[in-house]
Amino acid sequence: MTLDNIKEEIEKAENIVILTHESPDGDAIGSSLAMYQALKQLGKNPDLVIPEHPRTFDFLPCANEIKKAGRDINYDLAIALDCADTKRLDGFENWYHEAKVKISIDHHGSNTMYADYNYVDPVAPACSQILIIVLTSMGIEINKDIGECLLAGIITDTGGFKYEGVTTETFEFVASLLRIGVNVSEIYKKVLQVKTRAHFELTKIAIDRMEFFEDGKIAFTYITLKDIEDTKAESGDHEGLVEIGRDLEGVEVSILLRETEKGYKASLRSKEYVNVSEICSIFSGGGHQRAAGCTIPYALDQAKEKIIDRTKTFLK
Amino acid sequence: MTLDNIKEEIEKAENIVILTHESPDGDAIGSSLAMYQALKQLGKNPDLVIPEHPRTFDFLPCANEIKKAGRDINYDLAIALDCADTKRLDGFENWYHEAKVKISIDHHGSNTMYADYNYVDPVAPACSQILIIVLTSMGIEINKDIGECLLAGIITDTGGFKYEGVTTETFEFVASLLRIGVNVSEIYKKVLQVKTRAHFELTKIAIDRMEFFEDGKIAFTYITLKDIEDTKAESGDHEGLVEIGRDLEGVEVSILLRETEKGYKASLRSKEYVNVSEICSIFSGGGHQRAAGCTIPYALDQAKEKIIDRTKTFLK
Repeated sequence: MTLDNIKEEIEKAENIVILTHESPDGDAIGSSLAMYQALKQLGKNPDLVIPEHPRTFDFLPCANEIKKAGRDINYDLAIALDCADTKRLDGFENWYHEAKVKISIDHHGSNTMYADYNYVDPVAPACSQILIIVLTSMGIEINKDIGECLLAGIITDTGGFKYEGVTTETFEFVASLLRIGVNVSEIYKKVLQVKTRAHFELTKIAIDRMEFFEDGKIAFTYITLKDIEDTKAESGDHEGLVEIGRDLEGVEVSILLRETEKGYKASLRSKEYVNVSEICSIFSGGGHQRAAGCTIPYALDQAKEKIIDRTKTFLK
Repeated sequence: MTLDNIKEEIEKAENIVILTHESPDGDAIGSSLAMYQALKQLGKNPDLVIPEHPRTFDFLPCANEIKKAGRDINYDLAIALDCADTKRLDGFENWYHEAKVKISIDHHGSNTMYADYNYVDPVAPACSQILIIVLTSMGIEINKDIGECLLAGIITDTGGFKYEGVTTETFEFVASLLRIGVNVSEIYKKVLQVKTRAHFELTKIAIDRMEFFEDGKIAFTYITLKDIEDTKAESGDHEGLVEIGRDLEGVEVSILLRETEKGYKASLRSKEYVNVSEICSIFSGGGHQRAAGCTIPYALDQAKEKIIDRTKTFLK
């Protein structure tokens, strides 16, 4: 049983490194911080390595113990969380590949089963929700601090308890956190509700530029490097922009192009039936059925035309 | 015990009318529809009277049985739901006042205890959540249909499980609904997530006009009758606009003025400490600590000055 193997490998290991995907979101950070504290509870002294992450999650317990780099050793054990593919360990590869044993815990359907032990549940709405089972099987007490980290992950990846993936366990877990005194509303506010002024300015720009195609089934907008500069936006400030289009009546697919140094990053969201992960895989990207992304290394007009043309073929 | 009295009066009554507050929201409509179906389950044939309501909730079970007017009789029993004051029964007064026995079930702190039997819990996040207890004590089976109506009310009044008032019971109830097959995500989408094009156009206008006062602690914006006309907005299309300001970093109070035939309706939301219900009561309005409203019968500039000046005195 993978869960038994995971428990055993963790017990055996002295030097452990915890890693997660690049451009980490709340589920990546929340699940990593929860695992970090769980290992501390077992008397281990793990390294949690995340080179860059949005400051939104700095309020979480132990966030100040996140390291920007690992140690110059071969770790006994590397645990990759919320990461579908080793390619997404951009900036962490060496600590992962040189570790003696590798564990992956994840909820992406596209997970490539790259580790020695893979505990992957594509039905779970968040990697953090899988950790409830994993940590419990390791005999960890899910205290208030660990609970807050897992909650931040679940809130992020369920869009605040609203996506299709939510389960009985999601809500039972939140009830149990309220029972031990976790301020669910406070965590919700910090993770999803409170927006920066830069986010507000980007929202204004994205809404003003929004266009609709195919009888309003496709919503399209974009953000340039100049917008990012003008609004002094930081990592994470563009989160949520692509959902504005998706949440409109009649829209099936919402597309946001965001200029980066490497070309335009496309974020796609769908409402009911289009598998946007398939569209993104055409451009060597991926993700989930209703939320996916890819990079299109072209100028704005071409990138826009390419992604919209492909999307059209997926509409009913 | 009020619960026993309520049960007894319902058992005795032959002609029952269910009423809720004017400009009904999801909690008003959801709790009314749940009570309607519960009474049907007991073999009663109640009238559910709501003169006007937003079409957003037309998908709920039995919504097509809502009547625009009551019958020309003195009802044996009137049940008012989610209604703090008989003044808010605008358009329903006669059926309430002429009923032989009156019951009020509500969660507003400002409830005036106007009925013969008042079951008021100001700590409950939604009137629909109180109905879980009331219906259970009446021996009602909360089936899928009744559950969906209560869920719509809870989602509306907790802003999608995010406001401070959420409790262990909120999440345990949702878990129980998932267990009996309610599609929570679908209901969430219909109640809160899917926005009309008119809402999108109003959002664009409200964001473009947003101003900040007192070091960004007050966010202010407005919508005129002409905007409503231009965007072909219907009842409910302005919902959520006032939250845009509140959710911004640094903002404590968000104010939306919305022009009506009787002057400007002010909606106020606060984030952490200002009791906006107190501000609104100065203008003969009311509501909850973090969400309240009032009417200011002046032209835009004066209404704006008055409400902002008052709000300033409540800031830290």
